[in-house]
Amino acid sequence: MSKKYVYSFHEGNGSDKMLLGGKGANLCEMTQIGLNIPAGFVISTEACLKYLADETAPLPKSLKNEVLLQMKELEKQTGKKFGSAKDPLLVSVRSGGAMSMPGMMDTILNLGLNETTIKGLIEKTANPRFAWDAYRRFVQLFGKVALGVRDECFDVVFDEIKHRSNVTKDVDLTAEDLEEATYSFLRVVADVTGKPFPSDPYDQLEIAILAVFRSWNGKRARDYRKQFHITPAMANGTAVNIVTMVFGNMGNDSATGVGFTRDPGTGENVMYGEYLTDAQGEDVVAGIRTPKPVKEMETEMPEMYRQLVELRNKLEAHYHEVQDYEYTIEKGVLYCLQTRNGKMNTVAQVRTSVEMAQDNLISRKNAVLRVKPDDLTQLLSPQIDKSHAGKPIATGLSASPGAASGAIVFDANDAETWRDAGHKVILVREETKPEDIHGFFASVGILTSRGGKTSHAAVVARGMGKPCVAGAEGIKVDVRAKLATVGEHKLHEGDIITIDGGTGKVYLGEIPVIPPEFSEELKTLLSWADTFATLKVRANADTPDGAKKAREYGATGIGLVRTERMFNDVDRLPIMVDMIVADTIKQRTAALAKLGKMQREDFKQIFLTMAPLPVTVRLLDPPLHEFLPGEFDLLDKIAETKETGESAHAVKLLAAVRSLKETNPMLGHRGVRLGLTDPNIYQMQIHAILEATADCEEQGVHVVPEIMIPQVITVQEIDPILKWAKEIAADIAKKRNIVVKFSFGTMMETVRACLRADKLAETAEFFSFGTNDLSQATFSFSREDAENKFLPFYNEQEILIDNPFEILDVYGVGKLMRMAVEDGRKVRPNLKVGICGEHGGEPRSITFCHSIGLSYVSCSPLRIPIARLAAAHASLNEKK
Amino acid sequence: MSKKYVYSFHEGNGSDKMLLGGKGANLCEMTQIGLNIPAGFVISTEACLKYLADETAPLPKSLKNEVLLQMKELEKQTGKKFGSAKDPLLVSVRSGGAMSMPGMMDTILNLGLNETTIKGLIEKTANPRFAWDAYRRFVQLFGKVALGVRDECFDVVFDEIKHRSNVTKDVDLTAEDLEEATYSFLRVVADVTGKPFPSDPYDQLEIAILAVFRSWNGKRARDYRKQFHITPAMANGTAVNIVTMVFGNMGNDSATGVGFTRDPGTGENVMYGEYLTDAQGEDVVAGIRTPKPVKEMETEMPEMYRQLVELRNKLEAHYHEVQDYEYTIEKGVLYCLQTRNGKMNTVAQVRTSVEMAQDNLISRKNAVLRVKPDDLTQLLSPQIDKSHAGKPIATGLSASPGAASGAIVFDANDAETWRDAGHKVILVREETKPEDIHGFFASVGILTSRGGKTSHAAVVARGMGKPCVAGAEGIKVDVRAKLATVGEHKLHEGDIITIDGGTGKVYLGEIPVIPPEFSEELKTLLSWADTFATLKVRANADTPDGAKKAREYGATGIGLVRTERMFNDVDRLPIMVDMIVADTIKQRTAALAKLGKMQREDFKQIFLTMAPLPVTVRLLDPPLHEFLPGEFDLLDKIAETKETGESAHAVKLLAAVRSLKETNPMLGHRGVRLGLTDPNIYQMQIHAILEATADCEEQGVHVVPEIMIPQVITVQEIDPILKWAKEIAADIAKKRNIVVKFSFGTMMETVRACLRADKLAETAEFFSFGTNDLSQATFSFSREDAENKFLPFYNEQEILIDNPFEILDVYGVGKLMRMAVEDGRKVRPNLKVGICGEHGGEPRSITFCHSIGLSYVSCSPLRIPIARLAAAHASLNEKK
Repeated sequence: MSKKYVYSFHEGNGSDKMLLGGKGANLCEMTQIGLNIPAGFVISTEACLKYLADETAPLPKSLKNEVLLQMKELEKQTGKKFGSAKDPLLVSVRSGGAMSMPGMMDTILNLGLNETTIKGLIEKTANPRFAWDAYRRFVQLFGKVALGVRDECFDVVFDEIKHRSNVTKDVDLTAEDLEEATYSFLRVVADVTGKPFPSDPYDQLEIAILAVFRSWNGKRARDYRKQFHITPAMANGTAVNIVTMVFGNMGNDSATGVGFTRDPGTGENVMYGEYLTDAQGEDVVAGIRTPKPVKEMETEMPEMYRQLVELRNKLEAHYHEVQDYEYTIEKGVLYCLQTRNGKMNTVAQVRTSVEMAQDNLISRKNAVLRVKPDDLTQLLSPQIDKSHAGKPIATGLSASPGAASGAIVFDANDAETWRDAGHKVILVREETKPEDIHGFFASVGILTSRGGKTSHAAVVARGMGKPCVAGAEGIKVDVRAKLATVGEHKLHEGDIITIDGGTGKVYLGEIPVIPPEFSEELKTLLSWADTFATLKVRANADTPDGAKKAREYGATGIGLVRTERMFNDVDRLPIMVDMIVADTIKQRTAALAKLGKMQREDFKQIFLTMAPLPVTVRLLDPPLHEFLPGEFDLLDKIAETKETGESAHAVKLLAAVRSLKETNPMLGHRGVRLGLTDPNIYQMQIHAILEATADCEEQGVHVVPEIMIPQVITVQEIDPILKWAKEIAADIAKKRNIVVKFSFGTMMETVRACLRADKLAETAEFFSFGTNDLSQATFSFSREDAENKFLPFYNEQEILIDNPFEILDVYGVGKLMRMAVEDGRKVRPNLKVGICGEHGGEPRSITFCHSIGLSYVSCSPLRIPIARLAAAHASLNEKK
Repeated sequence: MSKKYVYSFHEGNGSDKMLLGGKGANLCEMTQIGLNIPAGFVISTEACLKYLADETAPLPKSLKNEVLLQMKELEKQTGKKFGSAKDPLLVSVRSGGAMSMPGMMDTILNLGLNETTIKGLIEKTANPRFAWDAYRRFVQLFGKVALGVRDECFDVVFDEIKHRSNVTKDVDLTAEDLEEATYSFLRVVADVTGKPFPSDPYDQLEIAILAVFRSWNGKRARDYRKQFHITPAMANGTAVNIVTMVFGNMGNDSATGVGFTRDPGTGENVMYGEYLTDAQGEDVVAGIRTPKPVKEMETEMPEMYRQLVELRNKLEAHYHEVQDYEYTIEKGVLYCLQTRNGKMNTVAQVRTSVEMAQDNLISRKNAVLRVKPDDLTQLLSPQIDKSHAGKPIATGLSASPGAASGAIVFDANDAETWRDAGHKVILVREETKPEDIHGFFASVGILTSRGGKTSHAAVVARGMGKPCVAGAEGIKVDVRAKLATVGEHKLHEGDIITIDGGTGKVYLGEIPVIPPEFSEELKTLLSWADTFATLKVRANADTPDGAKKAREYGATGIGLVRTERMFNDVDRLPIMVDMIVADTIKQRTAALAKLGKMQREDFKQIFLTMAPLPVTVRLLDPPLHEFLPGEFDLLDKIAETKETGESAHAVKLLAAVRSLKETNPMLGHRGVRLGLTDPNIYQMQIHAILEATADCEEQGVHVVPEIMIPQVITVQEIDPILKWAKEIAADIAKKRNIVVKFSFGTMMETVRACLRADKLAETAEFFSFGTNDLSQATFSFSREDAENKFLPFYNEQEILIDNPFEILDVYGVGKLMRMAVEDGRKVRPNLKVGICGEHGGEPRSITFCHSIGLSYVSCSPLRIPIARLAAAHASLNEKK
């Protein structure tokens, strides 16, 4: 028996894409699950390869026979006849390999038309214009793709006819025009090929099949396979799909439509879609008639509607995903033409996934995997309503997501004044400093013309969850004149702008904003995600309010309290400055005591909010000069106040600024280095942490804070600090008779810490990767400088595919992290290891963190849902 | 037979330090090689352990017998009798374990003295004062160390006697006074211990032996062993050495002296030392009499001199090292009391090592190993003559070695003016900038009040081999007033100071300077070193002059030409600035073309100087703003020139400075990043290198330059540059018909480069570690900030033992280097790997570089001899 090359849709194995191509296998599958698919069959990829092995040889006899048999079968099933003048069977012919691939042959529709069968089509549709249009299209398409006649040859003829009929659009041509065109096209083909257009439908069919086969080896298809590394193991040869044509334009019992099995905008479980009676698909696309909502079919064609509901239910029952489907009703018979997974927005994706799981259509695991973590960003920050947005006047960096509109102000005090007067304000600065912090509180959004994604403005705004566009270099800010210039626009205090921190765009005027959604379905989905994730998700939060938000968003603890943030409050910064410029030890101690009291209260509130969840407190990290005003500002101030004799303080500050000045502050006198050279700062902070712990214990709330040291390079740095902490705890035990416990660990944000992880683990009970700094050190990139100068160029040129400050660099930074985790756990097997850099909220980076066995990721509260979902994905996708 | 516990010096195994202690074994060895050592014996450490196992038990009978036998033997050898009133045998008793250890028992001298034997001693020495002094010392020392009587008890009595005799110094006491003191001391011992002072010599001996044994377990000895981790495997128990006393004060045929087997100041192979006739060692120390040079003995005591020469020859023949020895002549008999390896200065160390090898006393290998590489620093830079140096007025960082005196000037133009007027000048600045470069050329030394060891001043001075003291913060420099204030001193232009770049010290006035020595012996030693070293030594040199110096010092190539140095010349910097601030592409291209022409000529000269040795050229590394003046300077200039209307250029420069400004320049827009974003700079440089290569070929000199790219993090950065280089070479081949070859490689100075070494090695033919930057990135330390702020504190507190910018951090940076070498060679087995950071000239770091298989180290020309020696040591010390 000769090899089988042809499979009817009832026979083909729906999962055998290598043999039948993706499209063919899908058609077989749809047929076999009982959908009413127009009858048809598939010629296998093996037939294609057989033919291509020797193109000069004729088609195998057996293949021809199989095709003939299948065509007879189609005639039987449809009651139509191939080549008949009464009720002609027409088919489409299309290619389809195992992988979708541009460059393969286009679809040929209405194959089987000729001077005889055109009459039957006219009679059946009672629409001569449609029939002739179909015929002339068939001749052109067949001529082009099967016989190699170039489009231009048809175009010149067609344009001539339009010119003669004095019309410019195809739709204005009459049936007669199109009939003329058809005959002209037939002549064109004969002229160009030197042979008459094949009028025998079986000749047409054979030529079409061979053309499909040959297109597999066409230049475009080969180039495409080469470029995307598609090997024969992935796709080898193309199949040929031959499907009966059906028509929705055969009268009022015919129709054509498209639908989603659920509402792709909201995810609601309802019939959704549009249709047109007595029409074909192209009419919907051409926009000549306005389609009706599918609901109307319920009254217009109740039986058809019932069948459509049935079809929809079958689709979901079989595919377990929301489907985007096309159908045609030909004389009261519903045909499903195509179905594929429906594209939805995130709201709908979340809702349908959860509801399908609740209806046992899919598992919870599938529901969780179906939503992309990054897509949640859409749901979690207010967004510009795009339908109302005009052209942006400037673009900066997307520094903190969300959109906000407000009146612009140019300094922090003005921000408060305007806010107090009842306005929403946006603070616009060249760059911001700690002393502007009250301006952040007073504003709904921040816009700066300088600085990168880790600039002060960006980091503080993200921490507060406020929108921020940073480094919008097109804007010139003149703070004294209270004027921002953007190209031709001059913006004054009080002018309204809208910023979109998600895209970095700045708009004139107020643009409506869509509030963030945190639906019940999302909560459900995340609660399921948590059951799958092994990686915990903590929040970076610096205030009691931040802690509350962290719990709301489902954090399992706080992974990073940046204690320096507490010094930046408008009522605290001056005390910090006093401490820095203190002339005597007494003054310094007094300032530290004041700060300590405030920190203790902060810690207490954070601990109480989070208990019994863990809280990691990082001791002071930035260099002291970050708390002081800028050198130029001070020089201005001194010049201004010289004559009034009020410049003494500024002069003192200037001296401090100059003595603390550093060439590379990122690599300077900060973190543990400062903690060791100026021990009273860390001692004050440890005191505040442990006294706050005791305060909680006194209230019956058990708390074990995690004390974390930044910028560590060697265990010799942390040993003395652990000693201080033990002494302070002993002191509290003695004075207050309360035993306080704490855990002690280190940031891993220097390269050396990673290289010496085994030594560090001898003292540290936990590690937390600070991948912002670690990435800077690994690349020798200062993030601010890099993002403003060369990193965009690097990304554009694909020297670096990703921005390593957004997506963790697994080959460099990740290699160090993996080493550190392994070496640390060799010494301390139960070492807790987390990450608290911004990568902790980025899905691909979270997947990597999971893969190297981290215990948790910590990120800004707004990213927690994303991180929870990403952590679940990482677990679920892991190959065991 | 009972265990043997006691060994005469003739019996003991000279190498068995565990059994006999270091001192005992040494005495045995000296005896057995035929030196005339005072007769004696050793009680083994085993006896000590046996005794300590049960302190209540009496000494083993066998041990006592052995001691008795040995004492009889001593009597036989010396002809003296223990306890005799005629010619009494006196001995010393001292402890000695396998390792030298403070806290063990002091030496007891003159044991055997009592009321009987004192008479014999007086008679023999004819020196009652000496005899009574010896006796009262013996009583005190024995009382203290063997019987536990505290020093104060003797002191009060002794002070009373001095008071009564109305003398203040011990030396002024008479024989009678000392006799009285002796009797008083005997009473003190009896009073305190409740028992009379043991007068029987054998009782004295037994008590002394037991006291030595017990001292092994004394608190101080135990603490010492614990602190220095001395385990029983390293030293277990103490031996007891009992040695016949000999006296150099027994008349004119007696003497005492010390000597070196060669001159320890020059290394000359001559008799060297001093002696005193009729004296004992203490007299030399007390300084009462002036000792005579040993040469005088040749006439005064010719036979003794002959024996001394013989002794010296024996010592060197046996020990093969210059010996520092002590001797006593007692009545015409020469005794060698002690010998040890002589401490010498480096000049002598080098000369003696080379001459001993030439005389076949030692091998060349030993000669090379005998000189510490670091010690060569002494020989290679001019030094302050310490005998003339007063107190320094200020101290800064030792930024570039060598000493220099000169008139101070405060700016580069003044330096030229003064130099042209015939003065030697020292340039004094707060810090220096590229525009000061002509001031460096005009000066003999540089002094700055700010900046670290990699500050501009330090790096440029080191490159030029000129002394530099940097960051001398005690000095206030007021450039406009041409005044430097240091405490009370006010220094004006023209005042003379001396700086010592090796110690960082600054002196008032001119202090004589000793020129560097590069002796024939050193040359010989280094030529031997080269035969042992596998690691090659190259030089960092940026000019044809530097290249000449490199060859002179024995470099095997240039490992680093910093091309940016070539732009810093006074006639080139303005062109560089023009290039940076160019308004049009035409202006920029013109400036680049000028620079390219100059670089081409430089390269040609360097290549010709070095051929056929290899030269590695690094393309531009620093960020562009480093070539521009400072922001504040420009603001001043603009203010000054505003009214004259000449400020336009400064305003333009200021705009450039501000737009190029970076937060962390160390991690900024520099190296390959700049090379890629502004491709015409690197293209110009590659052009200059390859045209220069072609110029050499044209002259018949074959040259293959090594082109090196700085700051690389990924192979995607270097691939396009290699492509440019190939295109430029092809262009030259076409235009000039000369085929130029080159080698292409990368700096390894970012952490990521080390982590991605395998990928980089796919393109790079060589690696060169830039450990200055790599250390900064690994530690997250900015060197300038660290050395000025916290690093001294870290070193002081031993948080870091070494300064990682001076001594390579093998645990962190070294780990990365090792990984990079291994990973790189997996991909390219013949990968050439070097180091061109400052560590390349530091011996411990060189040892490490050897251990990880580097091909070469490259360092500043002045460090080449050190590096050559260190490379040899690394090879020779390697455990195979």
